[in-house]
Amino acid sequence: MSSFTELANARRSAMKFIPEVKIGNEEIEDILHVVKSAPSAFNLQHTRYLVVREPELIGGIYEAANKQYKVKSASAVVIVLGDMDAYQEIGNINEGLLNLGVMNKQEYDMTVNSVLSFYESGGEALRRDEAIRSASLSAMLFMLSAKDKGWDTCPMIGFDPGMLKKALQIPDRYVPVMMVTIGKEDTSRQRPRGYRKPLGEFVSYDRL
Amino acid sequence: MSSFTELANARRSAMKFIPEVKIGNEEIEDILHVVKSAPSAFNLQHTRYLVVREPELIGGIYEAANKQYKVKSASAVVIVLGDMDAYQEIGNINEGLLNLGVMNKQEYDMTVNSVLSFYESGGEALRRDEAIRSASLSAMLFMLSAKDKGWDTCPMIGFDPGMLKKALQIPDRYVPVMMVTIGKEDTSRQRPRGYRKPLGEFVSYDRL
Repeated sequence: MSSFTELANARRSAMKFIPEVKIGNEEIEDILHVVKSAPSAFNLQHTRYLVVREPELIGGIYEAANKQYKVKSASAVVIVLGDMDAYQEIGNINEGLLNLGVMNKQEYDMTVNSVLSFYESGGEALRRDEAIRSASLSAMLFMLSAKDKGWDTCPMIGFDPGMLKKALQIPDRYVPVMMVTIGKEDTSRQRPRGYRKPLGEFVSYDRL
Repeated sequence: MSSFTELANARRSAMKFIPEVKIGNEEIEDILHVVKSAPSAFNLQHTRYLVVREPELIGGIYEAANKQYKVKSASAVVIVLGDMDAYQEIGNINEGLLNLGVMNKQEYDMTVNSVLSFYESGGEALRRDEAIRSASLSAMLFMLSAKDKGWDTCPMIGFDPGMLKKALQIPDRYVPVMMVTIGKEDTSRQRPRGYRKPLGEFVSYDRL
């Protein structure tokens, strides 16, 4: 068994955090450096991380999240946002490849035009799907990277998106895809891991 | 630098696969064993993997995917599906915890009722968001696990979902969240890695 397998299995959603454990910006950035490598459609990097530790703002999140205690006992609450307007950056993102000569001007223009037309013709529904897809891919890397550096996490979707956006003044272009609480788990009340389906129930070959 | 950081950085979207490389069921299952540990809301495990290798079906995927050559040169095309009806399994999934006494009957009933009402009141939009969220978290683990075992992947969203569902007879309850081509990369034409935003552009503290 490789160490990656061990890491993936060691990452569990924390049930309870040890209160008053602090996490510093350097520790958060150490985790997020790895997250840069997450894939995203057309390399648009739709994901933004809003790391919240200020007590007053945590209070607002707590209200938006049905008063789940984890929000208050975690070292930080990380809001993983997907940017519905990320596609508008397609030109800027590919400029480097153009300047390096990896892409010629014709390829560059074709990429820019096809990506703009893909997202514009797909409408808001596609832009929302894409925001969720990219931010979720990224969030998985975040949780693994956190565990790799000794931190426990819990992904949460039980919050009111409107209340959360208001409490944190999040503009409408961002979908709050997930809240990830991060801290050190209090393992004294750890449950056995939840049931996992056997492969036969979630893998099919050629036909469902 | 830990080996996880190395693995995460080594995983890149493959530009081109070496044709005619075969991947067997055992190899696929080896990769997917790790994917079981993916988190999902309420442990609903919304994700299904449809692994396609049959040439005729690959032909149908190729048509649905704008004739992208990668579909034909990959060792398999893995359709990552999100199940919009996964929440209906909440009772079955928690039965083990009930039988083990980890959950008492009252907690079990509360969980079942609150999850059913959450997904039912959220309507199709929430069920779709959830399918995409869960399947994307899972797909990230899949791609890392594949790389860990020596396989290259490329996540793809450039396909017509309707055509794909028809070609593979995928029922409507499943959202085709992503196509992941898997194989051995032909690195002779590898490009430099795409530009990645510096941390300052995607991480904020307390306020965006």
